[in-house]
Amino acid sequence: MTSAAALRDISPINVHVPLGDRAYHILVGRGLIETAGSRIAALGARAAAIVTDEHVGPLYADALAQALTAQGLRVSVVTLPPGEATKSYANLEKVCDAVLSAKIERGDLVVALGGGVIGDLAGFAAAVVRRGVRFVQVPTSLLSQVDSSVGGKTGINSRHGKNLVGAFHQPSLVIADTALLDTLPLREMRAGYAEVAKYGLIDDARFFAWCEANWQSIFAGGPERDEAVAQSCRAKADVVVRDEHETGDRALLNLGHTFGHALEKITAYDSARLVHGEGVAIGLSLAFRFSAFLGLAPATDAERVERHLKAAGLPTRLGDVPGGCGTVDQLLDAMAQDKKVKGGALTFILARAIGQSFIAPGIDPDKVRAFLGREIDALHP
Amino acid sequence: MTSAAALRDISPINVHVPLGDRAYHILVGRGLIETAGSRIAALGARAAAIVTDEHVGPLYADALAQALTAQGLRVSVVTLPPGEATKSYANLEKVCDAVLSAKIERGDLVVALGGGVIGDLAGFAAAVVRRGVRFVQVPTSLLSQVDSSVGGKTGINSRHGKNLVGAFHQPSLVIADTALLDTLPLREMRAGYAEVAKYGLIDDARFFAWCEANWQSIFAGGPERDEAVAQSCRAKADVVVRDEHETGDRALLNLGHTFGHALEKITAYDSARLVHGEGVAIGLSLAFRFSAFLGLAPATDAERVERHLKAAGLPTRLGDVPGGCGTVDQLLDAMAQDKKVKGGALTFILARAIGQSFIAPGIDPDKVRAFLGREIDALHP
Repeated sequence: MTSAAALRDISPINVHVPLGDRAYHILVGRGLIETAGSRIAALGARAAAIVTDEHVGPLYADALAQALTAQGLRVSVVTLPPGEATKSYANLEKVCDAVLSAKIERGDLVVALGGGVIGDLAGFAAAVVRRGVRFVQVPTSLLSQVDSSVGGKTGINSRHGKNLVGAFHQPSLVIADTALLDTLPLREMRAGYAEVAKYGLIDDARFFAWCEANWQSIFAGGPERDEAVAQSCRAKADVVVRDEHETGDRALLNLGHTFGHALEKITAYDSARLVHGEGVAIGLSLAFRFSAFLGLAPATDAERVERHLKAAGLPTRLGDVPGGCGTVDQLLDAMAQDKKVKGGALTFILARAIGQSFIAPGIDPDKVRAFLGREIDALHP
Repeated sequence: MTSAAALRDISPINVHVPLGDRAYHILVGRGLIETAGSRIAALGARAAAIVTDEHVGPLYADALAQALTAQGLRVSVVTLPPGEATKSYANLEKVCDAVLSAKIERGDLVVALGGGVIGDLAGFAAAVVRRGVRFVQVPTSLLSQVDSSVGGKTGINSRHGKNLVGAFHQPSLVIADTALLDTLPLREMRAGYAEVAKYGLIDDARFFAWCEANWQSIFAGGPERDEAVAQSCRAKADVVVRDEHETGDRALLNLGHTFGHALEKITAYDSARLVHGEGVAIGLSLAFRFSAFLGLAPATDAERVERHLKAAGLPTRLGDVPGGCGTVDQLLDAMAQDKKVKGGALTFILARAIGQSFIAPGIDPDKVRAFLGREIDALHP
């Protein structure tokens, strides 16, 4: 007899991303890392350079390298320090040089084994080494499984802001083993969950309601976790297929990110203070509160968003930023690099209700200023 | 009355590169730099970051910046040292940061004002800043006008070899002012001319014969110069349109480059010893001599190639490399990073005759060894 769990191992959820000659599959399931070697080898490369970090590498890199070697691939491993600071020009050079040292050619593979930092950096290196080699994502955090490993955005950070230097480069395969999340620190699990909830908030009120009902099982590692990851990937893939290079709709994925990125910048990308998903959680809450402030969305929806994110252990207010969120002017300045402030109007992602977000160009900076002022004043009653 | 020269100014030769939504025009003519500002402004950007070097910048950057400013663009200039060593990771970071500091957004422009080094570096920066902003090439050397500014290959050098890190990123416009070549050092003029002759050798025997008859006028700046630049751009554009990302035919453009790159590597990219076009000239001569050695091409064709390149003042033999060309093993090693040596066969671009080149996979390394041995032995009779 075969248990339900074993069946899941044999048949992962398969999310197809139909991007023409750049189409690929995202496989989601418990225990997939054990068969990753043969699945990657099936892509037909002669060599693979695994890029990983000092947290993930010791746990999984050796086994993956052995599995690939057993399939006849020439394998090398480069290991980087964990953390957002790794997405630097210096590490881009380090990874590119390691990939070239490993004699990776156009038909070969870079394998990103890690969270979003490793995926973004290794993907960017794969995009530029020999002007493009193939790469595989093996995301090991919830955040990277539901967001950064899908859609082909790669890049590094600049002193001007996050992800300002990079490339669109689609992976050839994504393998998301949801069992790896069992050992993820709770704080990282929560941060990734902010992006899961985001997909509901963008355009799928039913999924948001499902999240409200099932988030505990997602955290605990029940079958709902696989479904949440797969549904998030489907939602992101739908948007990416409509607008691969972000000239339009794809901007909806930035719901919560305008405020979130500003907070990350103000906290100097110091993960001790704020990680990306926490910035997004506050940003989601603020996007709905700002929508309500502008009279666009019901205040009850903003309250419902905040209530759910808080229930999942996420921060939701400017006052939740350890060490402070800066002044209104600092926040506006931090938003200025990403967004068009000059000449007047800003572009935000706002919402008319849960599951009804939209791109809102032409937002008067004075309204943003008034809203942020009210939010900050509320911290010191 | 209007002189013929003035007519040429008004109507540059216009070479269209039909790459779908990445199509662009290459304008070739004397004095085009004077109208470059309005031509660039017509692309509709709000800002432009000019990237140039310490040789070219003092001559032309101010005038171009003023012309763009007069057209209402916000303009900044970043100036780099001249020379191949500028194509480094460090300068990629410098240019990306300068472009971001200049608040260049997706609709804005990076303008590469210089030779191939500036074009490759600035083009790569344009490819990766914000995952891609538009760029314009204003090539100021013969080499860049006929080769690197066309086709969208951008990149920097790695310790593993030249151009091993980069992107395909097509320019939005190329403006080749052939009058700028009047002040080009003769050595650079000759080096660029090697690439002009190459187009004839690849697949256009008539153009090669025309070059043999007209090369002095090309050097002197007669109307044949414009025609030679335009014809070279047409030839390259034809190949690029057939194979934008070099999965097939585009490799023909590497005629002479396998040997040439190896010599550049052996001379440590020291331009005092060998510049790219000189390496290509020796490489073209060797490609035909090797073809003859293999019994594929008539020896008389190899002699004719060498005779013409020598007449134009170019080196044609391994013995022409100042400081020596290394040993057979060093040459083979230097070719190994670019080409597939492992497992046996190498890929070369060879020829059956002038104007009849072809991609030749499966070349036995022992044949290359024997050929190079004979060439080196001939240096010490």
